[in-house]
Amino acid sequence: MTDKLHFEDFKVGDEAVYGPRHVTREEIVAFAAEFDPQPMHLDEAAAANTLLGGLGGSGWHSCALLMRMIADGFVLNSTSMGSPGVEEVRWLRPLRPGVNLRVRTRVLEARASKSRPDMGLVKMTFEMIDDSDAVVTTMISTLMMGRRDAGASA
Amino acid sequence: MTDKLHFEDFKVGDEAVYGPRHVTREEIVAFAAEFDPQPMHLDEAAAANTLLGGLGGSGWHSCALLMRMIADGFVLNSTSMGSPGVEEVRWLRPLRPGVNLRVRTRVLEARASKSRPDMGLVKMTFEMIDDSDAVVTTMISTLMMGRRDAGASA
Repeated sequence: MTDKLHFEDFKVGDEAVYGPRHVTREEIVAFAAEFDPQPMHLDEAAAANTLLGGLGGSGWHSCALLMRMIADGFVLNSTSMGSPGVEEVRWLRPLRPGVNLRVRTRVLEARASKSRPDMGLVKMTFEMIDDSDAVVTTMISTLMMGRRDAGASA
Repeated sequence: MTDKLHFEDFKVGDEAVYGPRHVTREEIVAFAAEFDPQPMHLDEAAAANTLLGGLGGSGWHSCALLMRMIADGFVLNSTSMGSPGVEEVRWLRPLRPGVNLRVRTRVLEARASKSRPDMGLVKMTFEMIDDSDAVVTTMISTLMMGRRDAGASA
């Protein structure tokens, strides 16, 4: 466990980039068919006349792909205890088939938990970007992390 | 198109319930394996010692299931043009295998778009509840809806 990332390893202002992750048309359509079967996520012809201007994945697919990249990037190598939720998600650009995605992270805030001495709270921004560095989705969320010095004062 | 729900059909305070949707252990593990492979979403033994206190689905799976219920419930029968994002997601309780989920919706705000006379913005709260009415996940999001009287003053 000692080589895993703990609360103390996250400093305000820390930045990192994770990925890449390629996403295919097949994945986009499969996710939409299961969870968000709106025409603009399923069919090019139907999507052409929508705000997406062509086939684009569900916003929830963007979130799920972002999650997978940060899981592989650092969460699975950390003492993460999960997250209470998300403060904000912005779907700024369509998730297009065939792109390569990455995630840029930045630590906004790191504070001890008041209720649990073994836990710290790390608030981060996540930006999912495509091949041309255009921002597809942004998210602000707080991760609950185990503390290396559990019980020490903040 | 005339029988579809338009912006004008959403009034502040309107409430509805959609679902149910059953979720299985197999679905929970499959979603986690693809998008959020943290041990508490994949394996009962690993999950027992986490904050979830037993196998629970990814929070993003909760969001995806909520989306599917509102898609079938009203979005696919509306003039929805998508959503710019989500203001808040709270993962209040674990997504447990074998439960039946429903979604309660409430319209918080309905206003004309300033930039697009053919569009209105409907802000809603979504609460995903289980068999015992316990709230699993809440969400606040704005849907972009086509207007029946496009171009009329708000």
